[in-house]
Amino acid sequence: MSDLGSGTTENRSFAELVTHQRACRRFDAGADLPDEDVLTMITHATHAPSAENSQPWEFVVIRSIETRRRFGDIMSEAWAIGGADYVRQAAPPTVYADIEDGIAAGGLLTAPVVVVVCADLDRVAEPWSAASIYPATQNLLLSAAYLGYGSCLTTGLTTIFADQVRDLLSLPSTVVPMAGVYLGRAARRLGLPRRDPAATHMHRETYGNSWT
Amino acid sequence: MSDLGSGTTENRSFAELVTHQRACRRFDAGADLPDEDVLTMITHATHAPSAENSQPWEFVVIRSIETRRRFGDIMSEAWAIGGADYVRQAAPPTVYADIEDGIAAGGLLTAPVVVVVCADLDRVAEPWSAASIYPATQNLLLSAAYLGYGSCLTTGLTTIFADQVRDLLSLPSTVVPMAGVYLGRAARRLGLPRRDPAATHMHRETYGNSWT
Repeated sequence: MSDLGSGTTENRSFAELVTHQRACRRFDAGADLPDEDVLTMITHATHAPSAENSQPWEFVVIRSIETRRRFGDIMSEAWAIGGADYVRQAAPPTVYADIEDGIAAGGLLTAPVVVVVCADLDRVAEPWSAASIYPATQNLLLSAAYLGYGSCLTTGLTTIFADQVRDLLSLPSTVVPMAGVYLGRAARRLGLPRRDPAATHMHRETYGNSWT
Repeated sequence: MSDLGSGTTENRSFAELVTHQRACRRFDAGADLPDEDVLTMITHATHAPSAENSQPWEFVVIRSIETRRRFGDIMSEAWAIGGADYVRQAAPPTVYADIEDGIAAGGLLTAPVVVVVCADLDRVAEPWSAASIYPATQNLLLSAAYLGYGSCLTTGLTTIFADQVRDLLSLPSTVVPMAGVYLGRAARRLGLPRRDPAATHMHRETYGNSWT
């Protein structure tokens, strides 16, 4: 078991940090997440690469409980009208239970900060927007772990609910929400992430040619 | 000036690593990049989050000079028929010059290893494939920096040239190339990445509400 997400981890190596980082869906609602740490995480996010160094990202930082509740309502609606069915079919029961706890049972609402990561399509062509936003988003998650916070990346808002998120956050028409990142101190110790051995997804020279 | 990309950096903090990581487009063609380090980088890549922990990634690791040349030819063709014009219009002259050096002047061909990161659409629905692949790709770039290598993320292959890449690497029809990552020891010391101050892209509660 790891204590990432529930304490300071600044002396950990990158290898420890990256192999322990995993989704946190229930937070210590009373623990502080100061602006200074939010700024550090987003500074780290903006050091990711982007197409032609276009830096097309915009970060909306939500602390207000009203806005977080309304954001949660949008997620809950997405869950109710099809998200739950999709996840139940796509994921093993343990993953489904964890996501359900976050969305339907209020876990994610305990996060004191939600960062909505957006792409400004005035600054990057649409085919390259995702490649310019999700690397920055991953830096944000790793930086949270580095500073001792838990985090959860959600992308349900990128589909039919994007317009509701746009209304909620007053996003201009060219600014597209790509990720909702929940941040805070983890409510409990997080286990290690479950992953296949890397070599099972590696190919030598051409697809299907075994790595080992 | 930083020496990331040209030596071991395993004792650097995450904050140093993430703020120094930047694109490297010319490598020391004689320097080795052993399989062990490739496996470490891809292991780190696979610890990124993915939709419902679907882990839809596949990594094709290219060392063969013939395949690297043919891959480079595809990139050069994309550059010639429109890529150069697009980048010239979208990016400042220094960025254009750097990309041109990599693609048109053979810089990227000096990388001893190219990893093509793919999404298997049998394992993730298309709207969430990018959010499940680019975080892993960013872990790969950071891991390269951690191990003292330079790296360059390219995504030109995701468009009309995806079919040529599919042919070259024998990708099944459900496996989509999303990124070409060049890896090796940097040929020269890399400067710090140029980035806007993070706060200029941050908003409080709603878009347009200044962070500071």
